[in-house]
Amino acid sequence: MTGNSFGRLFTFSSFGESHSECIGGIVEGFPAGIKLDMEFIRKEMSRRKSQNKFTTDRREEDEVVFLSGLDRGITLGTPLAFVIRNNNIRKEDYKDLEGFFRPSHGDFTYFCKYGLNASSGGGRASARETASRVVGGALAKLFLDKFGIKLDSKIVELGGIDYISDKDKAEAKLKQALAERDSLGGVIECTIHNAPAGLGEPVFDKLSSVLAHAAMSIPSSKSFEIGDGLESCKRKGSQDIDHWKESEGTLTNHSGGVQAGISNGEDIVFRVGFKPIASIGTLRCKDINGTIKEIDNRGRHDIAPVLRAGVIVEAMAALVIADFIKIQQSNKTI
Amino acid sequence: MTGNSFGRLFTFSSFGESHSECIGGIVEGFPAGIKLDMEFIRKEMSRRKSQNKFTTDRREEDEVVFLSGLDRGITLGTPLAFVIRNNNIRKEDYKDLEGFFRPSHGDFTYFCKYGLNASSGGGRASARETASRVVGGALAKLFLDKFGIKLDSKIVELGGIDYISDKDKAEAKLKQALAERDSLGGVIECTIHNAPAGLGEPVFDKLSSVLAHAAMSIPSSKSFEIGDGLESCKRKGSQDIDHWKESEGTLTNHSGGVQAGISNGEDIVFRVGFKPIASIGTLRCKDINGTIKEIDNRGRHDIAPVLRAGVIVEAMAALVIADFIKIQQSNKTI
Amino acid sequence: MTGNSFGRLFTFSSFGESHSECIGGIVEGFPAGIKLDMEFIRKEMSRRKSQNKFTTDRREEDEVVFLSGLDRGITLGTPLAFVIRNNNIRKEDYKDLEGFFRPSHGDFTYFCKYGLNASSGGGRASARETASRVVGGALAKLFLDKFGIKLDSKIVELGGIDYISDKDKAEAKLKQALAERDSLGGVIECTIHNAPAGLGEPVFDKLSSVLAHAAMSIPSSKSFEIGDGLESCKRKGSQDIDHWKESEGTLTNHSGGVQAGISNGEDIVFRVGFKPIASIGTLRCKDINGTIKEIDNRGRHDIAPVLRAGVIVEAMAALVIADFIKIQQSNKTI
Amino acid sequence: MTGNSFGRLFTFSSFGESHSECIGGIVEGFPAGIKLDMEFIRKEMSRRKSQNKFTTDRREEDEVVFLSGLDRGITLGTPLAFVIRNNNIRKEDYKDLEGFFRPSHGDFTYFCKYGLNASSGGGRASARETASRVVGGALAKLFLDKFGIKLDSKIVELGGIDYISDKDKAEAKLKQALAERDSLGGVIECTIHNAPAGLGEPVFDKLSSVLAHAAMSIPSSKSFEIGDGLESCKRKGSQDIDHWKESEGTLTNHSGGVQAGISNGEDIVFRVGFKPIASIGTLRCKDINGTIKEIDNRGRHDIAPVLRAGVIVEAMAALVIADFIKIQQSNKTI
Repeated sequence: MTGNSFGRLFTFSSFGESHSECIGGIVEGFPAGIKLDMEFIRKEMSRRKSQNKFTTDRREEDEVVFLSGLDRGITLGTPLAFVIRNNNIRKEDYKDLEGFFRPSHGDFTYFCKYGLNASSGGGRASARETASRVVGGALAKLFLDKFGIKLDSKIVELGGIDYISDKDKAEAKLKQALAERDSLGGVIECTIHNAPAGLGEPVFDKLSSVLAHAAMSIPSSKSFEIGDGLESCKRKGSQDIDHWKESEGTLTNHSGGVQAGISNGEDIVFRVGFKPIASIGTLRCKDINGTIKEIDNRGRHDIAPVLRAGVIVEAMAALVIADFIKIQQSNKTI
Repeated sequence: MTGNSFGRLFTFSSFGESHSECIGGIVEGFPAGIKLDMEFIRKEMSRRKSQNKFTTDRREEDEVVFLSGLDRGITLGTPLAFVIRNNNIRKEDYKDLEGFFRPSHGDFTYFCKYGLNASSGGGRASARETASRVVGGALAKLFLDKFGIKLDSKIVELGGIDYISDKDKAEAKLKQALAERDSLGGVIECTIHNAPAGLGEPVFDKLSSVLAHAAMSIPSSKSFEIGDGLESCKRKGSQDIDHWKESEGTLTNHSGGVQAGISNGEDIVFRVGFKPIASIGTLRCKDINGTIKEIDNRGRHDIAPVLRAGVIVEAMAALVIADFIKIQQSNKTI
Repeated sequence: MTGNSFGRLFTFSSFGESHSECIGGIVEGFPAGIKLDMEFIRKEMSRRKSQNKFTTDRREEDEVVFLSGLDRGITLGTPLAFVIRNNNIRKEDYKDLEGFFRPSHGDFTYFCKYGLNASSGGGRASARETASRVVGGALAKLFLDKFGIKLDSKIVELGGIDYISDKDKAEAKLKQALAERDSLGGVIECTIHNAPAGLGEPVFDKLSSVLAHAAMSIPSSKSFEIGDGLESCKRKGSQDIDHWKESEGTLTNHSGGVQAGISNGEDIVFRVGFKPIASIGTLRCKDINGTIKEIDNRGRHDIAPVLRAGVIVEAMAALVIADFIKIQQSNKTI
Repeated sequence: MTGNSFGRLFTFSSFGESHSECIGGIVEGFPAGIKLDMEFIRKEMSRRKSQNKFTTDRREEDEVVFLSGLDRGITLGTPLAFVIRNNNIRKEDYKDLEGFFRPSHGDFTYFCKYGLNASSGGGRASARETASRVVGGALAKLFLDKFGIKLDSKIVELGGIDYISDKDKAEAKLKQALAERDSLGGVIECTIHNAPAGLGEPVFDKLSSVLAHAAMSIPSSKSFEIGDGLESCKRKGSQDIDHWKESEGTLTNHSGGVQAGISNGEDIVFRVGFKPIASIGTLRCKDINGTIKEIDNRGRHDIAPVLRAGVIVEAMAALVIADFIKIQQSNKTI
């Protein structure tokens, strides 16, 4: 209700600001009696960390400490609460910003919402909170693994360049943006393999609706497409129909595995577009009195959030599917 | 929880199948003491009806009858339940379909979900249910009107053609599709004017997330973009920043009025893409035993859902904003 | 969220005022493919109707008409919406009351909540809405029947007299109250047979919590007790323990089938106390200006709501158990 | 949805087992910009601690550490997460119990729910979790304080003896129970002062319903009464009516400040009965194979939970009122 929780039966709640002592979360609805694969959780966390020369130099250790829900590593069926320390808080990086709203950031909108100028680093609006999502998503994946469901993702576009066919060109553009202290947008494609048919609820909680909700909650997201997405919208119906195979399934998958909002057993495919982040070299900020001030942006930020957004997109998708699996199970009643 | 309700404080619930006696809904959270403008509701309903030669010839009277929540036309603050009769049920149009799944329709996915072959016309998955949404949206608009908030929408693309600059070309393509008993996709842009800054909840219920959820729940929707959407994702950060005006507001509105998930006081702008509907001339259907059958599609369907989707997109957006207004008011506590 | 819905996976929503054209409701989460036993629903409705000389003379036909969710009498898995006409609206009975608040009624509190003086008969606060609950409960019972779960109830106290051991005395007191145009309170005991162990959620949604929520939502309810209730609270621990049988189960059932908030497989037993209704012979009313007026109470009301509350208590309990059955099923995942 | 959260706009979520490293919780919906009175929170925590010779000798330090939602002690409007260490875990006290179900405890029902035998101390079902509720309640009280709303509570019955008129007799009975290693039940009365009229939602979320839900979620609770409760149910209507004062308010308050489920501006009064805890001297336990074993109960437990339940009852009531205040504010729209 207050926007810090996601899901209904398999739920994830998030807390913590980027510059407080820690961030964390709670996963509920995870079954009892399962030994948690901590190594998998660590691996997922490392996927989110800076992986190459282009991402932020902010070193995030991101050790996940579970506070509850476990007895000797085995889940109890009770809430799995965890924390991740914010090891590397450099508030001085944000000192110049105090009282000023950066353009295209959350500084002003949070001020309008809460009536206070959250201190350095954007507080709750920082992408730092996505570390908690990765833990939630890792738990959802461990759950889905029991059903044989797997997720993966890839960058399909970077700075307007096709990242599959023109990777070298895209990387060159990225290098240039880095040199200019600028940033780049891009698009992630995520695929959910082996999900059963029947997931999603009619009318308002279609699988595509809830995936869109989940994806568009990731910082910097600007677009969501299910299946062929905007390409479908340019077609005639005769070009967009997924015809039946003689055997099971469909010959094409324009629909992205979702028809009338419910999964049909094909791969579920969707894309999320991310804008270039606004934390570039110099920012023309403004305070409440209208004073404009050019501020040199010393905070450590990603040049292209899309470079490490894949694991976050997967995390949100895993949470969605885990929840729908439980909802669908609640329906198998008699 | 079961997908037939939307919203938290200003809520809309929907019921009814396309071929049962009626469809309807319930709006809750509408304030007491307001004389309902029935003429406005009628006008909104007529906007959804076939408005030109290209949309379905199914005549929908769509008279809205309120069952509760009113005393002499004044709202009581209690649930506003309403029904709309399904006047024109022609089950014979769907007789050939019995036991067969149309391709790219909900027939098969609903079968997987509910374990039964819903009778003629797709039942709950039919776009018929959107008539109820228009009533819910009309009530939301009447509520928003008290705050000076207005919504409008327009077609921006049809069959891959820019509908603003090349309308004639688009209409020619539409005529051709009609002649071929084919269908066309397209894109709607919706703008919300005069919404206050501060709407939207952090992290999981960002304004953009919930708008995406709402929009992607509309039948045939395939894509959602906030602000410049996919265009933003192709840019460098320096090209995408909305710089402050000297006075209030921003010079550009690439962000679509939403920053860090919360409204900033600018126009809220988003786009929804709709695929061409799959109910075209002849459909290669399949039954549970794998038997394939070509079926002539006699049901009355839209050739391009985008032609009358505008009022539905606005309805969903109005419900979202009405809900966030109430949530924001609940926060103005002390 | 706005108080007109109950449940999470098996849900019931209610609408309608006592003096509008109809009341009604929506049940969601009922499985697809089941032939609804309309005769059972009728019987449940007749249990709520005036059954003896002591209850109101208001003749309620209470025919239930389903608007959606059915195809040839078979459930579709979609929302089951229904209406019940208010056949017998005698607004003139309430004419004297206009502008006046009856004592110990909802007139004043609804005025404080909604800022308007709801017209005759109390509108939404009238016990008339419980007719819809009986339909919701009947559907829940049909669902529970598939699991072998049954509910029953009885009056255990009337006007402070034990209704089991001193029925004649209680009836004499009732006759006297009738003669004096007064009313009587009483207590209902409800038993749920054959519910599986494991129902109820830890901490905040204990089975006893949600049963209490459900029971205390019934008009005129004043108390809730699980198992031996207040009697338990007077005991020493050694007197209140339910010792294990050598075989399955417990020797006693002081706990009422619920331990630590979760069912243990014994009969679930609870009691609900109802106050004597305040709609007695003459009412000393007051208007917004403080003017006091004695009003002769001509509206038709029950002398003792407890006489026909049993089926309503069962209905609410059935909704609670149906919901927990579905939640528990969602947990049987792997 | 999974039972670990309470409330809708002012929410409290709980996590942690009695014998894990810590317990904790998250409060959401607390306004931004308020300096948290940590001393008040400490005082509330100390009220829950063993206060006299009769309660458990388990020393609970119960220091509350906030992890998020604060910047230099000022609330940010974001989730307030906190932890309380479990300092004093003596698992050996529970070693004999392993594999055995104590009678009238949650051991068996949790086993039925989760399919595993939670280790020592009952895990999540332990009253230890109520420490987190006190923090949640303290925050709710700080919020309510801004509206002038205060809560208090008192023991009204202990071991069946009136604690107001016969306190000495009750204490003697308590001493005797202590000597016998037995336990006692009792009843708490809670009063909410200065709550505005208009709180509570019609039909299913009446103020009395939600208070009942809240109260009956407290471990060992067995009964809930609003206002005169069971006494009202023994009366005639003419004896139970709260007549209007000439000036504002009512002459009596039989209804406990709630009429038709909505507050009327009088003191809100309710009572919660607690059974004597089952953790007495010797427990006749049973394992999954039906083996019976007498176990000496060495775990530290309260002899009478009612002795320190007052602050917990107040905490739950404060959470209910805080939530309804926010809901009511969301309705003051135009």
